[in-house]
Amino acid sequence: MSIPGTIYGVGLGPGAADLMSVRADRLVRGARHVAYFRKAGRQGHARRIVDGMLRDDVIELPMDYPVTTEIPVSDPRYNACLSEFYAEWTQRLLTLASAGEEVAVLCEGDPFFYGSFMHLYTRLSGVAPVVVVPGITGMSGAWTATGLPVTWGDDVMTILMATLPEEELVRRIRDTDALAVMKIGRNFTKLRRAVVAAGREDAAWLVEYATMGDQRVTPLRDIGEEAGAITPYFSILIIHGQGRRP
Amino acid sequence: MSIPGTIYGVGLGPGAADLMSVRADRLVRGARHVAYFRKAGRQGHARRIVDGMLRDDVIELPMDYPVTTEIPVSDPRYNACLSEFYAEWTQRLLTLASAGEEVAVLCEGDPFFYGSFMHLYTRLSGVAPVVVVPGITGMSGAWTATGLPVTWGDDVMTILMATLPEEELVRRIRDTDALAVMKIGRNFTKLRRAVVAAGREDAAWLVEYATMGDQRVTPLRDIGEEAGAITPYFSILIIHGQGRRP
Repeated sequence: MSIPGTIYGVGLGPGAADLMSVRADRLVRGARHVAYFRKAGRQGHARRIVDGMLRDDVIELPMDYPVTTEIPVSDPRYNACLSEFYAEWTQRLLTLASAGEEVAVLCEGDPFFYGSFMHLYTRLSGVAPVVVVPGITGMSGAWTATGLPVTWGDDVMTILMATLPEEELVRRIRDTDALAVMKIGRNFTKLRRAVVAAGREDAAWLVEYATMGDQRVTPLRDIGEEAGAITPYFSILIIHGQGRRP
Repeated sequence: MSIPGTIYGVGLGPGAADLMSVRADRLVRGARHVAYFRKAGRQGHARRIVDGMLRDDVIELPMDYPVTTEIPVSDPRYNACLSEFYAEWTQRLLTLASAGEEVAVLCEGDPFFYGSFMHLYTRLSGVAPVVVVPGITGMSGAWTATGLPVTWGDDVMTILMATLPEEELVRRIRDTDALAVMKIGRNFTKLRRAVVAAGREDAAWLVEYATMGDQRVTPLRDIGEEAGAITPYFSILIIHGQGRRP
């Protein structure tokens, strides 16, 4: 590859700025070009984490999602729309790297773990130099917030998206020791039904805004029916394993 | 609680020193008392990660496991022996905290994710102030090393210990999108048979010493039968999910 610049996918961790790695911190503070995804019209979660850390002469590249929940994921237009968006940003980042610039792309949590950056990564990989810096996942932030270890001994841990069909959620929640569920939002009521059907309501915790100023940890059974119809973006459900402990 | 000192369980991340969080870095560099687990007679993996970072006047507290693989886990003496060990170290840390000292306990990866610190944590919690700092997990280091995103869209991810019975490994490896397997060591041959039986040999990668100087990433099918009878302590098997991608 003859492209002189590098594109960094920088894992920012779960939310608290000092839970970013030393390597990520150095890259964020030094970057002349900083790109980040956000919902159009919002500041963006990733951008908020690095508030006060960027260079004075930074060039910010907000990448506004063309669609979030306006079109259902199952609609072919959803995929087409996002595909065009990622292709366009791939081109813009390539142009910068070709001119010898370094670009830090901010990623909440860990870039390779259910992140949007992966869609740029697969398009850039093999074309331009791309370096990924892992991060502390949001789920690590969530189980730490509960104050209880999540996995012991030979515990099996399962990670699920609440977007899955209800029967599949029930089957898998029943069949694991430890559990983390993400992408809850509008799926909260379905998820709660699944946890109850799997017989594990009393073991489940909802963690909102883990490691952030407004962190909240609530036993699932204490959340009212109405209150929890839609949970915030940063919501993770945790069930702790109960494996071997000397 | 009237105990004036604090005990910190500090997640060090997967191995590279600059993949520790800014918060962990600050605690490690500032700590007067630094405790860490190790196999007797060895330097210890956690201790090696912080080489060159400790205060000149640091007091080191190596916690030598009384047993690692000499007694089988199923033997009641194994549990009794470790239980006594954790109780003894709980007492020593409590004595320090009671005298107003702060102690950093070094934890590879994330302290609440299959870590030894949890056994001290549960004994200290509610008795003395204990603060846990999450870390980048070893599996994040491993999937980052493969250069491929591990989970997409609605992928299900399963985390297994290779110590589980072979039939259970087969069943669960067949029934997940993405996979991480730890505690491989002497279970490598069994694990490989399970991955083959689940029909996923071609999708599996073995990552050794992720993020460290001697990092090695190998497709499972390229590992010879003899070569892989026992893998190093830092070995993680990864299968990547193949979920939705616009």
